Amino acid sequence: MPQTSLMMTLQFSSSGTPVNVQAKHFLIPGLGRYDHKYSPKLPSKSPKTSIFNSHQIPNPILHQPPVNQSVAAIVFGDGSESRLYPLTKRRSEGAIPIASNYRLIDAVVSNCINSNINKIYALTQFNSTSLNSHLSRAYSGASLGKEGFVEVIAAYQSPEDQGWFQGTADAIRRCLWVLEEYPVAEFLVLPGHHLYKMDYQRVIESHRNRKSDITIVASNGITKRDQDPGVGVLKINTENQVMQYSLKSNKEPVNYAVVEAYLFEGYWEDMRSIEAFYQANMECIKKLNTGYNSFCDRDSPVYTIPRNLPPTVVNDAMITDSVIGDGCILNRCKIKSTVVGMRTKIRDGAIIEDSVIMGSDVYQIEDGRESSIKSTSVPIGIGENTEIRKAIVDKNARIGKNVKIINKDNVEEGDREANGYIISGRIMVVLRSAEIPDNSIL
Amino acid sequence: MPQTSLMMTLQFSSSGTPVNVQAKHFLIPGLGRYDHKYSPKLPSKSPKTSIFNSHQIPNPILHQPPVNQSVAAIVFGDGSESRLYPLTKRRSEGAIPIASNYRLIDAVVSNCINSNINKIYALTQFNSTSLNSHLSRAYSGASLGKEGFVEVIAAYQSPEDQGWFQGTADAIRRCLWVLEEYPVAEFLVLPGHHLYKMDYQRVIESHRNRKSDITIVASNGITKRDQDPGVGVLKINTENQVMQYSLKSNKEPVNYAVVEAYLFEGYWEDMRSIEAFYQANMECIKKLNTGYNSFCDRDSPVYTIPRNLPPTVVNDAMITDSVIGDGCILNRCKIKSTVVGMRTKIRDGAIIEDSVIMGSDVYQIEDGRESSIKSTSVPIGIGENTEIRKAIVDKNARIGKNVKIINKDNVEEGDREANGYIISGRIMVVLRSAEIPDNSIL
Amino acid sequence: MPQTSLMMTLQFSSSGTPVNVQAKHFLIPGLGRYDHKYSPKLPSKSPKTSIFNSHQIPNPILHQPPVNQSVAAIVFGDGSESRLYPLTKRRSEGAIPIASNYRLIDAVVSNCINSNINKIYALTQFNSTSLNSHLSRAYSGASLGKEGFVEVIAAYQSPEDQGWFQGTADAIRRCLWVLEEYPVAEFLVLPGHHLYKMDYQRVIESHRNRKSDITIVASNGITKRDQDPGVGVLKINTENQVMQYSLKSNKEPVNYAVVEAYLFEGYWEDMRSIEAFYQANMECIKKLNTGYNSFCDRDSPVYTIPRNLPPTVVNDAMITDSVIGDGCILNRCKIKSTVVGMRTKIRDGAIIEDSVIMGSDVYQIEDGRESSIKSTSVPIGIGENTEIRKAIVDKNARIGKNVKIINKDNVEEGDREANGYIISGRIMVVLRSAEIPDNSIL
Amino acid sequence: MPQTSLMMTLQFSSSGTPVNVQAKHFLIPGLGRYDHKYSPKLPSKSPKTSIFNSHQIPNPILHQPPVNQSVAAIVFGDGSESRLYPLTKRRSEGAIPIASNYRLIDAVVSNCINSNINKIYALTQFNSTSLNSHLSRAYSGASLGKEGFVEVIAAYQSPEDQGWFQGTADAIRRCLWVLEEYPVAEFLVLPGHHLYKMDYQRVIESHRNRKSDITIVASNGITKRDQDPGVGVLKINTENQVMQYSLKSNKEPVNYAVVEAYLFEGYWEDMRSIEAFYQANMECIKKLNTGYNSFCDRDSPVYTIPRNLPPTVVNDAMITDSVIGDGCILNRCKIKSTVVGMRTKIRDGAIIEDSVIMGSDVYQIEDGRESSIKSTSVPIGIGENTEIRKAIVDKNARIGKNVKIINKDNVEEGDREANGYIISGRIMVVLRSAEIPDNSIL
Repeated sequence: MPQTSLMMTLQFSSSGTPVNVQAKHFLIPGLGRYDHKYSPKLPSKSPKTSIFNSHQIPNPILHQPPVNQSVAAIVFGDGSESRLYPLTKRRSEGAIPIASNYRLIDAVVSNCINSNINKIYALTQFNSTSLNSHLSRAYSGASLGKEGFVEVIAAYQSPEDQGWFQGTADAIRRCLWVLEEYPVAEFLVLPGHHLYKMDYQRVIESHRNRKSDITIVASNGITKRDQDPGVGVLKINTENQVMQYSLKSNKEPVNYAVVEAYLFEGYWEDMRSIEAFYQANMECIKKLNTGYNSFCDRDSPVYTIPRNLPPTVVNDAMITDSVIGDGCILNRCKIKSTVVGMRTKIRDGAIIEDSVIMGSDVYQIEDGRESSIKSTSVPIGIGENTEIRKAIVDKNARIGKNVKIINKDNVEEGDREANGYIISGRIMVVLRSAEIPDNSIL
Repeated sequence: MPQTSLMMTLQFSSSGTPVNVQAKHFLIPGLGRYDHKYSPKLPSKSPKTSIFNSHQIPNPILHQPPVNQSVAAIVFGDGSESRLYPLTKRRSEGAIPIASNYRLIDAVVSNCINSNINKIYALTQFNSTSLNSHLSRAYSGASLGKEGFVEVIAAYQSPEDQGWFQGTADAIRRCLWVLEEYPVAEFLVLPGHHLYKMDYQRVIESHRNRKSDITIVASNGITKRDQDPGVGVLKINTENQVMQYSLKSNKEPVNYAVVEAYLFEGYWEDMRSIEAFYQANMECIKKLNTGYNSFCDRDSPVYTIPRNLPPTVVNDAMITDSVIGDGCILNRCKIKSTVVGMRTKIRDGAIIEDSVIMGSDVYQIEDGRESSIKSTSVPIGIGENTEIRKAIVDKNARIGKNVKIINKDNVEEGDREANGYIISGRIMVVLRSAEIPDNSIL
Repeated sequence: MPQTSLMMTLQFSSSGTPVNVQAKHFLIPGLGRYDHKYSPKLPSKSPKTSIFNSHQIPNPILHQPPVNQSVAAIVFGDGSESRLYPLTKRRSEGAIPIASNYRLIDAVVSNCINSNINKIYALTQFNSTSLNSHLSRAYSGASLGKEGFVEVIAAYQSPEDQGWFQGTADAIRRCLWVLEEYPVAEFLVLPGHHLYKMDYQRVIESHRNRKSDITIVASNGITKRDQDPGVGVLKINTENQVMQYSLKSNKEPVNYAVVEAYLFEGYWEDMRSIEAFYQANMECIKKLNTGYNSFCDRDSPVYTIPRNLPPTVVNDAMITDSVIGDGCILNRCKIKSTVVGMRTKIRDGAIIEDSVIMGSDVYQIEDGRESSIKSTSVPIGIGENTEIRKAIVDKNARIGKNVKIINKDNVEEGDREANGYIISGRIMVVLRSAEIPDNSIL
Repeated sequence: MPQTSLMMTLQFSSSGTPVNVQAKHFLIPGLGRYDHKYSPKLPSKSPKTSIFNSHQIPNPILHQPPVNQSVAAIVFGDGSESRLYPLTKRRSEGAIPIASNYRLIDAVVSNCINSNINKIYALTQFNSTSLNSHLSRAYSGASLGKEGFVEVIAAYQSPEDQGWFQGTADAIRRCLWVLEEYPVAEFLVLPGHHLYKMDYQRVIESHRNRKSDITIVASNGITKRDQDPGVGVLKINTENQVMQYSLKSNKEPVNYAVVEAYLFEGYWEDMRSIEAFYQANMECIKKLNTGYNSFCDRDSPVYTIPRNLPPTVVNDAMITDSVIGDGCILNRCKIKSTVVGMRTKIRDGAIIEDSVIMGSDVYQIEDGRESSIKSTSVPIGIGENTEIRKAIVDKNARIGKNVKIINKDNVEEGDREANGYIISGRIMVVLRSAEIPDNSIL
């Protein structure tokens, strides 16, 4: 039976010497061909800390199979549904819109495609519908080459397994039989809510050269935002071998087999909170040349749903340090340091600053002829003379006229969900399809 | 708020006069635009018998919107996982292979497409992976026209709903918000495991002309197989109005608002048991002009995954009253009254009669050069001098040499799952990927 | 042999009473099934004026086949290569970029799709490569429904026909055998360089109701630009029957069989000159609600190649009355009354007014790392402090710094092709991939 | 300006020592970025013998770009329209059906895809329509990966070039500007009517290692069929350097710059005549393991249009040493040593031996209900009690009852085109859509 080995990605705080490293992801051994009699020694309800050994690949390095045949990626489409709430109220984390035209999971899936890995499984169980829809529309087509696919594996009931996925290890264990068809020798386990650009082929090369059982990709791009206790700790020695690994939910460190670390230097953002998500969008604009600016990179583009939108129509706008998605309608307005999503309509006199406007799924016809959308007093988009500062406005929101979304009381955290918004880290978050009446001051 | 109305399909035993009718499907009101404040009066754990009223469509018949804009189909990809076991061990009912090249759900989805209904939601929660994979590969492309889609909605966890679907009504209720984007006025609720050909446009026309709240499509093609108590009972009057409706799990009849019945005459098979599934395959062969013979119908074809398979290679075969899928390799063999699925390999001396061979997902390379499949003593396919009669052989099975699969002890029902097969209604069913050693006599 | 009948589109100057009408298109009878013995009575080198009779459809109106089965559209991708030169230097007319994201032919093909006509043949022989490429990428996918296609028929040599198409009638005659496979009863003959929005289903309905042999669609939207003698003249009576038809190249009027006219009221632009093309772009901006403004129309969108471009990045721009395509990079600049095409890069200090910037096919990497494009002194896009007024800048042009493209000598017509531009009707036209050195004043 | 170099494929008769080699293909230098001022020194009407030098690639071998970025393939879709007449009457050579499910050009295009070359240009000018249609339907989708395409370049008229392609060199010269967008460093020039399986990556590796200007791929699989004088002669020395090269149309040998030969051992068939085409089909059946048997090869499959055809229905057939395409209907018949194409219908009592039946584009409905095909006395397919031996029956042919297609007079060559067939090398060839009346004996 062919043996497989594993790689994973996570973030840690330093390298070269034994240090504490933050980590909250892991990986388990997979099988090129699933044997029905095979029973991996996995606890049926494994905690999120489980790490399992694997055997070395017997093949010498010179005869390694090409990446696009032997490596499969397993992308987790949802983490927790709570840390990015309310953006995750109707979607999983991977389906959150980012950078005007994209969904969060596009970053990791595009990394795979650009690294010639074209067997990609996306595992979901929280609010999976919009993620399913996005992935099947974005990646069913031309970019994946022969035998390539992005396949969604939703949690399901079966005669053996009645319950939901019990952690990541359980999720992978229950999906192994799907992989029976393909001779996969190495798994790449990837969280779907990270933002970075990496050539996984280098990781695979390192993994093979060092004959690792498990390779953990770790980043040293740690800021003080990462110091929260919610992530794990990884200790490595001077040869990048992992000595110790601990996780939030498992207070004591886990020792285990020798594991190698692959150190990645570069921009890497983990969307662990509303604030992190907001900052990622802001950096997307401001540091176009130092952050995750590779949207224009021809050799390794970021993929998403190919679209047919009309050009953006601008009547009279002053736009500064902003990113404008496809098919917007911008009337007499001022936009500064803002990410403007697809099909956003901004009406006369509006002022938007330091914000993320996610846009709309549809165009609302306003002339009364034949509206396919329920007519309400407040149309989709940003109303006349409305002012928005440091806010995230989710899709299809209806912001009225003369509205101010400015966190007027300077609230740190606030739950006004019944009124269509919440406040998180002083950032105003207007919910998907929420309606903010004319003249509101928030 | 626009009102919607509903149609459904089911089978019943007669028409014209009040009679008992067997039914086990139902429908609930939907909304063109889902309002987040809307709370349909649905019991949170509605039993499978629930039927709910809806209001009439106010529009006069002359101004009805075209079918492809106002109607959405909701297809249930799984029924029970048990009645077609073991065919449902690794897949949901809709994903069971049928008629060599197809999956069961292709029949209903193709009916939708051929009726110009191109907004199709498939709901799944049992073993959903292979159904997801099939639907996304088969229907992501060219056959659905502008704005068309087949979208899989898997059961999921969300802040409001932590559990699995609790029956059909609950499944639909939890998915209504997905439909927000489209101005759907009528829902067509369809079980995905039925085999028939119908132009739903006629149903919709009748539904609109009679201004029904609910239209139930009912068939009079009832044989004695349908007399089992597992289905419901429907009473209609001489004007095809439904007077009473009862279901298996709900012993007493349910009265409710006036509902119309649409009577369908023609072949209609409900895959309620292994025997029904077997018979459907046999009729697919034998009554090519009276049964579900429309695979060659150019104007309303059955769709499935477009494939690139090589032609079938025949070395020396006598083939009688059979159907041969794409890409088979048939050596010196006799095949009679059998459905032979894609990539089936039948070796010298084999005799197959009255059977359903589902074929293989892959070609197994046998020359020892570079096998991507685990080498075992028994290769995929049917071995030399093996004899198979009245059997269903699931995908990727490995039947050895000199095997006899003939139900030698004439067993009615038998569970030999540990040996790779079961017996149901005297039909031998070899499991997916099972291995039957050389010289076995079953 | 089934008979077919025909429709065509053209422009004329009035309606209701016999008047002179400008026309330069025509149609010929086709055949549902091409008979190899059939020899339509067409002159081998028919002049462009030929009009041929056809027999009536025998079927009563009640049993007319649906549009998507019986009607095929034949779109002419090129007219003359000279009237829009130099935009047609490397492409046919239909492939000229328009309205930031589109090609000219997208308007007519989208009309077909939105009218449920999904059998579309595009005939080309001048510079056909880019049109072929565009059509196969834009329309091979999801928008055409079952059995739909946009198929390019390039001029070719065959045993019977060695030469190029000799006019439109000859082009159609030589392609009839291609249509053998489909039961086409009516042909819709469409020039590919017109800009308008029309529901052809109404034309077909009128054609069938009036049992016409030939229906000519004519527009009354005639301005003084249309008075040039290059088009034909059509006389109709009070019942919209066509009495006389003459064409430019055929000085005397052509009488023929009774033909019906279908009068179309609405925006309709024929790209008969550089000036007409320029005006169409300007109207695209200025009269968003009266001209061809339907790019945002959800029910009948304009299709084109689905794309994956990054959002437009704006550093500090004042944008007035303009249309901005996908994936632009706009630095500190002023843009007024301008169509800005995909991937346009405008550098600091640039001022663009009353212009059409077609954009670029690629992103040019400028940091010197790894340029896949030949490095030249002038990069693709608009250079620093450059001023452009009333100009058309074709794709991939390289406009240097401190350039003025302002028609400084107020030239009416000028051929400076060796210098990378021409002047037509006082409009500056910079050629595709042309390089305008720094400090040039044109 | 980046230099490019070239590879080509052809056949020759031996290797290792200087010998005469048959060749009739060639290649010319290309350019990574086409410079509009660039004028390759090509004779405007270059004979087919032209070979042009190119400069060496300056890059050391270690830093060669990956194949899928730097190599473009140019496939010639048509050779002469006469040598395979009448199979080329309505199509170019590359579009001739072969091996039941494929078109001839699929073999070469699949070689490219399987060699990771995904920038493929197909050049056509003879009867190009069906080839265009095939390529755009077969290769617009999923198999080509990111940035991949198969693009058809039809002969066209432009301001500079009014005429048809004047030989292969002229064809390539006129298409070079199309390649402007991509950084192509090496061209692979491939005739589209050859049948073989080759990993071009090995050719490219050899080409780079030996720093060739031009590499000619040559085969030693020469039989006596190849001895006809219609091909060229290639002399190579012991180091596989090409010393001399001559062609049929150019009687004297052409010396030129040093060129390397890459020797290919394996099955390689050049469809230079009806007989060669017939033999290739026969070998496709008989030597499944020694000839071009790779249709079942999972790692390097042959691609074609993905299809949705129903399974083949067999009523009562004895089938020996044959290949059966998708969606056939085989009644009570005997089939031996025959290639049966898609949708072939063979009626009761028919006997087919040693033949190639190309099948049909459509299903003809025979029950009189609603035929979309013109009703004739002879339906599409093979009639009752008809006997066919050593024949090629082109698509959509209508062979009546009690017909014998047996070359009864043992004619070597015969032109009976008016009667629907010709005889070539004693092989009967029934034309596309021809009708052979009942009781005919040919």
